[in-house]
Amino acid sequence: MLINCVAYEDGAKLADIEVEDISDYVARPNCFVWVALSDPVPEELAALQEEFGLHELAVEDASHGHQRPKVEEYGNSLFVVMHLVEPVMTRGKVEEDFNVGEVDVFVGRNYVVSVRSRSKAGFLGVRERCEREPELLRNGSGFVLYALMDAVVDRYFPVIDSLEVELESIEKQIFDQGGAPRESIKHLYELKQRAMVLKHAVAPLLEGAGKLHGGRVPQICAGSQEYFRDVVDHLTRMNASIESIRDTISTAIHVNLSMVTISDGEVTKRLAAWASIFAVCTAFAGIWGMNFEAMPELKWRYGYLMALGLIVGTCGFLYWRFRKAGWL
Amino acid sequence: MLINCVAYEDGAKLADIEVEDISDYVARPNCFVWVALSDPVPEELAALQEEFGLHELAVEDASHGHQRPKVEEYGNSLFVVMHLVEPVMTRGKVEEDFNVGEVDVFVGRNYVVSVRSRSKAGFLGVRERCEREPELLRNGSGFVLYALMDAVVDRYFPVIDSLEVELESIEKQIFDQGGAPRESIKHLYELKQRAMVLKHAVAPLLEGAGKLHGGRVPQICAGSQEYFRDVVDHLTRMNASIESIRDTISTAIHVNLSMVTISDGEVTKRLAAWASIFAVCTAFAGIWGMNFEAMPELKWRYGYLMALGLIVGTCGFLYWRFRKAGWL
Amino acid sequence: MLINCVAYEDGAKLADIEVEDISDYVARPNCFVWVALSDPVPEELAALQEEFGLHELAVEDASHGHQRPKVEEYGNSLFVVMHLVEPVMTRGKVEEDFNVGEVDVFVGRNYVVSVRSRSKAGFLGVRERCEREPELLRNGSGFVLYALMDAVVDRYFPVIDSLEVELESIEKQIFDQGGAPRESIKHLYELKQRAMVLKHAVAPLLEGAGKLHGGRVPQICAGSQEYFRDVVDHLTRMNASIESIRDTISTAIHVNLSMVTISDGEVTKRLAAWASIFAVCTAFAGIWGMNFEAMPELKWRYGYLMALGLIVGTCGFLYWRFRKAGWL
Amino acid sequence: MLINCVAYEDGAKLADIEVEDISDYVARPNCFVWVALSDPVPEELAALQEEFGLHELAVEDASHGHQRPKVEEYGNSLFVVMHLVEPVMTRGKVEEDFNVGEVDVFVGRNYVVSVRSRSKAGFLGVRERCEREPELLRNGSGFVLYALMDAVVDRYFPVIDSLEVELESIEKQIFDQGGAPRESIKHLYELKQRAMVLKHAVAPLLEGAGKLHGGRVPQICAGSQEYFRDVVDHLTRMNASIESIRDTISTAIHVNLSMVTISDGEVTKRLAAWASIFAVCTAFAGIWGMNFEAMPELKWRYGYLMALGLIVGTCGFLYWRFRKAGWL
Amino acid sequence: MLINCVAYEDGAKLADIEVEDISDYVARPNCFVWVALSDPVPEELAALQEEFGLHELAVEDASHGHQRPKVEEYGNSLFVVMHLVEPVMTRGKVEEDFNVGEVDVFVGRNYVVSVRSRSKAGFLGVRERCEREPELLRNGSGFVLYALMDAVVDRYFPVIDSLEVELESIEKQIFDQGGAPRESIKHLYELKQRAMVLKHAVAPLLEGAGKLHGGRVPQICAGSQEYFRDVVDHLTRMNASIESIRDTISTAIHVNLSMVTISDGEVTKRLAAWASIFAVCTAFAGIWGMNFEAMPELKWRYGYLMALGLIVGTCGFLYWRFRKAGWL
Repeated sequence: MLINCVAYEDGAKLADIEVEDISDYVARPNCFVWVALSDPVPEELAALQEEFGLHELAVEDASHGHQRPKVEEYGNSLFVVMHLVEPVMTRGKVEEDFNVGEVDVFVGRNYVVSVRSRSKAGFLGVRERCEREPELLRNGSGFVLYALMDAVVDRYFPVIDSLEVELESIEKQIFDQGGAPRESIKHLYELKQRAMVLKHAVAPLLEGAGKLHGGRVPQICAGSQEYFRDVVDHLTRMNASIESIRDTISTAIHVNLSMVTISDGEVTKRLAAWASIFAVCTAFAGIWGMNFEAMPELKWRYGYLMALGLIVGTCGFLYWRFRKAGWL
Repeated sequence: MLINCVAYEDGAKLADIEVEDISDYVARPNCFVWVALSDPVPEELAALQEEFGLHELAVEDASHGHQRPKVEEYGNSLFVVMHLVEPVMTRGKVEEDFNVGEVDVFVGRNYVVSVRSRSKAGFLGVRERCEREPELLRNGSGFVLYALMDAVVDRYFPVIDSLEVELESIEKQIFDQGGAPRESIKHLYELKQRAMVLKHAVAPLLEGAGKLHGGRVPQICAGSQEYFRDVVDHLTRMNASIESIRDTISTAIHVNLSMVTISDGEVTKRLAAWASIFAVCTAFAGIWGMNFEAMPELKWRYGYLMALGLIVGTCGFLYWRFRKAGWL
Repeated sequence: MLINCVAYEDGAKLADIEVEDISDYVARPNCFVWVALSDPVPEELAALQEEFGLHELAVEDASHGHQRPKVEEYGNSLFVVMHLVEPVMTRGKVEEDFNVGEVDVFVGRNYVVSVRSRSKAGFLGVRERCEREPELLRNGSGFVLYALMDAVVDRYFPVIDSLEVELESIEKQIFDQGGAPRESIKHLYELKQRAMVLKHAVAPLLEGAGKLHGGRVPQICAGSQEYFRDVVDHLTRMNASIESIRDTISTAIHVNLSMVTISDGEVTKRLAAWASIFAVCTAFAGIWGMNFEAMPELKWRYGYLMALGLIVGTCGFLYWRFRKAGWL
Repeated sequence: MLINCVAYEDGAKLADIEVEDISDYVARPNCFVWVALSDPVPEELAALQEEFGLHELAVEDASHGHQRPKVEEYGNSLFVVMHLVEPVMTRGKVEEDFNVGEVDVFVGRNYVVSVRSRSKAGFLGVRERCEREPELLRNGSGFVLYALMDAVVDRYFPVIDSLEVELESIEKQIFDQGGAPRESIKHLYELKQRAMVLKHAVAPLLEGAGKLHGGRVPQICAGSQEYFRDVVDHLTRMNASIESIRDTISTAIHVNLSMVTISDGEVTKRLAAWASIFAVCTAFAGIWGMNFEAMPELKWRYGYLMALGLIVGTCGFLYWRFRKAGWL
Repeated sequence: MLINCVAYEDGAKLADIEVEDISDYVARPNCFVWVALSDPVPEELAALQEEFGLHELAVEDASHGHQRPKVEEYGNSLFVVMHLVEPVMTRGKVEEDFNVGEVDVFVGRNYVVSVRSRSKAGFLGVRERCEREPELLRNGSGFVLYALMDAVVDRYFPVIDSLEVELESIEKQIFDQGGAPRESIKHLYELKQRAMVLKHAVAPLLEGAGKLHGGRVPQICAGSQEYFRDVVDHLTRMNASIESIRDTISTAIHVNLSMVTISDGEVTKRLAAWASIFAVCTAFAGIWGMNFEAMPELKWRYGYLMALGLIVGTCGFLYWRFRKAGWL
């Protein structure tokens, strides 16, 4: 679906144009065309491929989707793939899974084609912000690429934050004595999966974006190098955060197992201690329950009291010992 | 076994030719010969070695088989080894093991020799596709190498997908309370082995294929660089997926152990709690089973009821306490 | 909040100046201005941005805060972000958390702007020390950057030391038989989190600072290269220490679990051994408590004594066996 | 001990010569001398050091032995250290340890000195093979180095294979319910040690041999580059195999622990379930064993049968429940 | 404390000289001065700093001590820090801790200053050995640096060996059934700490020493390159050994836990099996201890024998079953 198609000259918007008129505008020297598509049908992509002379392999990637994030040069043009990672909401509740969309951007000297797939969150705000800053937009298509990249990357931050918040809530649960270790561990496992999804969005993009500043930079991005470095910096920070989260989850899984083992050990000790106390009690009672004829104490007046006293005393002594040993 | 031997000129098929006639065709300027072999006998390889002047070490590798995937330059020619990883099917059921075949490709300016070993899945489709696109096949032997590589790599995708599906089914089993931890862990272990087989197919090929685009590229592949980058891109994605799978398996093994420990702990607690309740019951009964003469309560009219009441009451109290503590 | 704003010439302090007068001083050849801010309002930053021509993206980073440590070149000027890691004290007691502040430094040929955020510990001492050594301060703004960096880095040492001390105290607790494994493991987990905070302060700064000595060095720092190498050396040492701490914590978590398992095993064995002894006792008593008519030993004169002897003997034998096996 | 000392010219054997005559032969242009020693005494090494002008440090290394594998250049000559890893056999049975021998090779333009230590397996076969292929031996001393290296490396393959076979047999034992976990884990541990010995033989040699092909290659090896690449390729494959083995062993240790925990849990559950059933039985019996006078059911005609029925019924019910829960 | 101060010319000792006369000797072309200090007071360092023009930062490092091992260039001079790792002996017994001393070496074209701190083991032997080999000492101050480095590095070998011996003794203890897991694990933990101390001595020195051979080498060391490569080679070997030790310790900790779990499981099974046997025994006895009037078997002549027979038979059957299952 074509969302919009606009021509810009010297950083200012010229007009909303038709796809057929594109070739008129791209011929002008300081002019570039910015086309936005969403879940396009093959014909739409084919039309644009012809208009802008996009490379066959790049178009194939864009129409197949499910690419890993990357920044590829085809001659003087760039093909950029980014992931959109969005928490799934069903009936106002966040589900424990991510929806992974994709933005593919074709950038040439005088055009930008952005193709959004499998995601509902558009980039109209990016276009508006760009149009409000014509002095930056004058940098041309490279700056538009930066603006799109920056918008995508900025959307990762809240996702990473929410992972960190979830992780903290699990940590509390782990160290809480009445916790539910089964749920904690399941939650940790799911969290690790989601951290991996984010990792696969961030790490390859970081690698790709690194080619857009410093050293040998594609012509189109040369004027916006410092902006791309800013994006790389954000991605580096995110990457470190995700690594921290993954590392912490691994530790938390170990720690959770330790807490369970400790907890189980305590309960086992307590129950076993009580069982021992009653076993002693039963053993004593069993002895005086024997049917021997010659058991003088059975006939004593206070034999029964003595027996009860002995039993209660022994049990009490054991209780005191176990208490002291910290088992009860 | 020779499968076929065809000469191409300017991207179009000239003729099926005999091995003896090869030298006539390779002498022509824009002509190349594409020979396909399957599990060849040494004589067949020797004949081709002479026709094309293949390097002794490369031919030795191809006839021994069981090489690791690699891309080697011998002067102006290339020798490429790729693994074919195929699930084994016996009577319509997928077995938990892979059949690892091998494709060795010799590529020179005017010839391609592909040698398939220990695998039944041929590459006729690749040849047909190439012949349908003469404008691409005009790129010469380098493009044929790409086409073969692409076909091999594309066959890894369903294998990786099936590993991911299996992994998910084990995950369900792990978090399912009535699960079979013994089977889960065995399955995880086997899965890890298979992921390693895939890893050994993908990672070295990724490394080797990286030499075919960007930087200093062998002459033969120069015209198809962007295609090889596409292959590298696929391999990079696969490599990341395999790493994810391996990492997830490791976590799953830990998590499985944790779940078992938690589950065992719960059962132990429950059984021990019940045992405690009955031990108390037995202890009380034992006391009134003693044979002391002077046990006044034995003669009370409602002594028995009182005793039963006390026993049931105590057990009930314990039951309530254990329930509250979450052990029952 | 502006803390101070001083002009220096040839390494000596000229005068405390007003922000408006800055442009007069930066014009002089051997003169530079050093401005210190603390948690500035946007207007203050904007004013300095204009005075010194600071780059928009750097100013944005400084006003947003929460950057990762970095050393960035903007043309001939540098933008440096460093973390301040301070233990939180409440009522004289160290809390188990860090306060992470930030120092952002803009350095140009003839100015230094240091912006401190979210931290109470100032850098007046650094300025004083610099003013006492005019022969070093003559090196210009690069040397001021070194002095600030050195001060920040030196503050990490006691923090790392305190982590090491805490770790040692936990180690003692782990190997102490009457230890509290639950607390140990919680403490280890918290320690790992804090080590990670430090890591995120040290590692990226090490990476960034590495660009300030050896190889291609920014013009401003060229004269102070050996000083920056010294800072890098300190950071490298810290980084190694933090890695050691993290590694040791991981080992300690494993070891703690092992100690708990060993401890639990010992207690379980002891309790189970006692339970066995009493179970044997009960079983014997049960047998002579049966009501068969024809049980000759019940009528023996010393039957009871014999029974008691047998019971005590068997229990004694078991006690001796268990003792020998190390279970009691 | 001097094994043999032969002069070669243009790839063909000239004569077995005496150590004293060496200098006559090395002076000829296309001639080189190949000396083989085994566990030499210092005098033998000293004599050769003088004849060929070997570097003092290299000779020291060779006489001390116990070097790590390496490839070192001394001016125009090479000094290569390789490990020989051999399973120890005592009375026809393979012991669980490796004998680590050493081959040190000095290579100059016109000489090769190979020194074998602490190993009984000689390299006569290598010499014979070389002499059968004069067209390759014409490449000079570099080719002899390749031939020796290839022979050493080829001997690693069966060792690695045997490790893999052993690992598989342990795997079977782990997943076998009647397995011996204690032996499995001990075996795994020993296997890991041996894998480490192999690793220390292969990895440094791989690193060193990498310098002998591609990029800047020592003069002596220039003509045999592709052969050395072949050796590197074998070493890379071995290195990957060893890494796989190590990784698999780590996983297997974890999995073994899991299997033990699962097994123990099952047995504990079963025993505890039976104990519960009998505890219930005992508790009931205890109640009717009390000596209260007013226990009407004791006088019922079918009281006993009723009691037995109740006891058996309850136990049967418990048995059914436990069975359903999978504990029995 | 000044240990000695000697001038050398052309590799031969000239004279023991006074600190004040140093400047006379360093002026001569082929002459250099070698000063050795031990735990110097600041004045001694200051005097030498003036005599040789040592860099301020290097002197600061040397007087502070506790640096990480490093090799730093200050213009044409070198500053080298090395650790001395010595087992602590108290009353003839090796303690489980290391004493970490330090040697700081300043090397210029015509001087060597070695500063030993916190260690009693001197380097007189190094000086003597150097003086015995004037043809090597002629290489100048660089060779002295090599000799010192070699001496320091050679002292690591016995320390690493002792770690390996200790590790082997723990291994034996782990696999010994009557072992003391608590002590093993504590010992392993301490061993890992000590391995880390060694690692911190070896790894950074390896990194630093790598700059002294191959590639761009400091002028002073140019003539002794091959000697420094030898040192690097030793350090590489040590580094690999330490890594092996660390890896083995980690595995050993896991294996120890596994052995404990297996051992505990066996004991638990055995005790639980015995408890089950006696519980069965008690249950039977309980039934015939009930006080029902109508229990015909109680009146049978051989009822008691039958009961005993049944009890013993059942217990025997259980014993046989448990034995077969390997629990007893």
